[in-house]
Amino acid sequence: MITKLATKRINKMAKQQDLQEVAGGGLLDRRVFLKRSLSFSVAALASDQVFAAADHQRLPWTQKPGEPFTNYGQPSDYERKTIRWTMANGVADGNGVSWTPLHDLEGSITPNGLHFERHHNGVPDIDPKKHQLLIHGAVKQALLFDMDDLMRYPMRSVYSFIECGGNSNAGWRDEPIQTAAGYFHGMASASEWTGVPLNILLDEAKVRGRAKWMIAEGADASLMNVSIPLDKAMDDCILAMYQNGERIRPENGYPLRLLVPGWEGVVNVKWVRRLHLSNRPTMSRNETAKYTELLPSGKARQFTFVMEAKSLITSPSFGHKLDKKGLYQISGLAWSGRGKIKRVEVSADGGKTWADAELQTPVLSKCFTRFRIPWQWKGETAILKSRAIDETGYQQPERDTLIAERGKHGYFHYNAIVSWKVSSRGEISHVYA
Amino acid sequence: MITKLATKRINKMAKQQDLQEVAGGGLLDRRVFLKRSLSFSVAALASDQVFAAADHQRLPWTQKPGEPFTNYGQPSDYERKTIRWTMANGVADGNGVSWTPLHDLEGSITPNGLHFERHHNGVPDIDPKKHQLLIHGAVKQALLFDMDDLMRYPMRSVYSFIECGGNSNAGWRDEPIQTAAGYFHGMASASEWTGVPLNILLDEAKVRGRAKWMIAEGADASLMNVSIPLDKAMDDCILAMYQNGERIRPENGYPLRLLVPGWEGVVNVKWVRRLHLSNRPTMSRNETAKYTELLPSGKARQFTFVMEAKSLITSPSFGHKLDKKGLYQISGLAWSGRGKIKRVEVSADGGKTWADAELQTPVLSKCFTRFRIPWQWKGETAILKSRAIDETGYQQPERDTLIAERGKHGYFHYNAIVSWKVSSRGEISHVYA
Repeated sequence: MITKLATKRINKMAKQQDLQEVAGGGLLDRRVFLKRSLSFSVAALASDQVFAAADHQRLPWTQKPGEPFTNYGQPSDYERKTIRWTMANGVADGNGVSWTPLHDLEGSITPNGLHFERHHNGVPDIDPKKHQLLIHGAVKQALLFDMDDLMRYPMRSVYSFIECGGNSNAGWRDEPIQTAAGYFHGMASASEWTGVPLNILLDEAKVRGRAKWMIAEGADASLMNVSIPLDKAMDDCILAMYQNGERIRPENGYPLRLLVPGWEGVVNVKWVRRLHLSNRPTMSRNETAKYTELLPSGKARQFTFVMEAKSLITSPSFGHKLDKKGLYQISGLAWSGRGKIKRVEVSADGGKTWADAELQTPVLSKCFTRFRIPWQWKGETAILKSRAIDETGYQQPERDTLIAERGKHGYFHYNAIVSWKVSSRGEISHVYA
Repeated sequence: MITKLATKRINKMAKQQDLQEVAGGGLLDRRVFLKRSLSFSVAALASDQVFAAADHQRLPWTQKPGEPFTNYGQPSDYERKTIRWTMANGVADGNGVSWTPLHDLEGSITPNGLHFERHHNGVPDIDPKKHQLLIHGAVKQALLFDMDDLMRYPMRSVYSFIECGGNSNAGWRDEPIQTAAGYFHGMASASEWTGVPLNILLDEAKVRGRAKWMIAEGADASLMNVSIPLDKAMDDCILAMYQNGERIRPENGYPLRLLVPGWEGVVNVKWVRRLHLSNRPTMSRNETAKYTELLPSGKARQFTFVMEAKSLITSPSFGHKLDKKGLYQISGLAWSGRGKIKRVEVSADGGKTWADAELQTPVLSKCFTRFRIPWQWKGETAILKSRAIDETGYQQPERDTLIAERGKHGYFHYNAIVSWKVSSRGEISHVYA
């Protein structure tokens, strides 16, 4: 719904705005918007137009009372396209994934209805009154907790992303996949998680000196289990019961999920029912046949828990279209399993030059960080990229670098720079560049 | 589901734990939980019990594949009690409120489905393609924005509470209301809001020097309108399009809401369609007959926008029950419309002595701050209170002080200290104390 007036005005303003680039392809200083003397694409009105626009009677929803109150709200029917895409394995019941539609979202929180899923045998419908957590093995005192017990324990809240180790694995393909940003990179979501710090429970059970690993098992029908080094278990893990304020959703582990901040999704065991302390890992399917990576050397990486720094531009991205030349805001997400994002750089000329994006505060450790930078699109072909640098100094690699290091059979832990090509018609595709 | 073993063990541990009180009634140092040598109420197991507990075959949900993937998730059926209570005015269609069930939530974010509502004529079902925002009046250039226009503008995210000016108004009653914390104080919720900073649009329209007020109007059938001083409009307001990552829910203003951080809910105009700049307020019904307060002097307060510092204990609170003596965590929420919460103090002896609660980080300006403190309940009658102090030094008042200052006809802006009485049977009631 772009008016002629709007187009005329933006062109005029674009000339007036002698905006200096800070990097090639039209990137502007991230603080440009603070000047607030900019124009985008809006209709300037004559007085008779103001009169017409102010008239509420042309709007049907001002003419009758609206809908009643609801006990639990839902999105607008006009937003039905904003959903998780799902992909289920045809030969194994309830094995598959769903993606968070990152290309439709803004800010840093993922709403609970859109948090990504990765299930190995579907979503169990667990009665919380019958759910228990057992801590046993190399402990002086085996302990059994029901949910009422856990509710009485001290709690802590943490904003944290969870990302599947297999997220973005289409990046390993020879040809760039043409799909929305969320359906490529959306096995990553961020929430405020609240629950009992795991170390309190482990201390109560008195872990024996020989214990080096903790094997966590879910109560789904696949009895998903993984091994976690004791150091991490004693560090910042949480037995989460709440997600963004309310009890965790069934598909995210209701009534109890092990949150392992910054580590690959698979170790954040959902529906967790058992923690077994041991002197060695359990070598389960999901830490041997799966979630390991064959390297060019012929050796395989195993127990590659940490999700390294990563970023992507969510707007504009594949499926969006730029209708006209002028000012835009590039917006995206960055995160690191090692701590805080220190910097995100953006390029509009395919990586020749880079400029710093603005980071939305508060920048939180092991959580999504929204970044934004103004961009003046002149109607020419452009290649947009972002790269994250975390507080350890680690820099998100170009795809070539990642492939050289890890080969083409990695499948997991793909975190290369993402490139979106904007055509002169404003259409956006995914490229390797 | 408390086992005999658990009860036996907690009693033993309670003796062992020679925990020193930091205030009367059993309040413990907020850092006690860091010692992690505490015991709550959990069953310690013999080896045959471990074997039985580890057996997954007793759990029905491990015996068959779970539910399939969903495009948009919902809470567990076992959490159906966690809802917004609603109260609609019988003689005015769509006029009423719904409350956030704060007593069932943890952390600081309110999930979108449970954000409180206050409607004057129901929830309009707005087609975003037909929604426009008009800025006019005392401006050099009237502007008309459609949603596509706004989507192109720079955005900012902010975590912010919204609280209805009439929240907690049952506190003005002569007798303490006996209802859950959320159905008493839950016309307050907190979200991450994302949208276009209002000052960018006002600058573009070039506000004239005579303009001192901005009158904001919603597109609901009541055409809700209020006046906001220009200083605030130019400060930190946002035209919000996203709430906790996704587009705003219909009942929270889809597709566009004016966010006025820290100010009473009524000025956070939902479905905002018109901003009229003027040299004076509009004196609409909702800033004259309503949302004003008759003082003991006979004068009335008007334009009392800022929500002053407030706090309440959400757990334990009315409706909860303590099953046994021993350690608990007291948990609650604090917020201030003037900035950050600096301190929350808790009392377990009706206000005779107080101890500092731990504030969950990050402590954010004009947003909910979760506070927690350990408490050892000895099975005696106790009166629990919390009081918030914000960064301006303002301290949440006792009820007597508030009544003395504002009289009994205030109705709005009730922010007195809340007192929960714990009986020797562990039952909790609301008291004025």
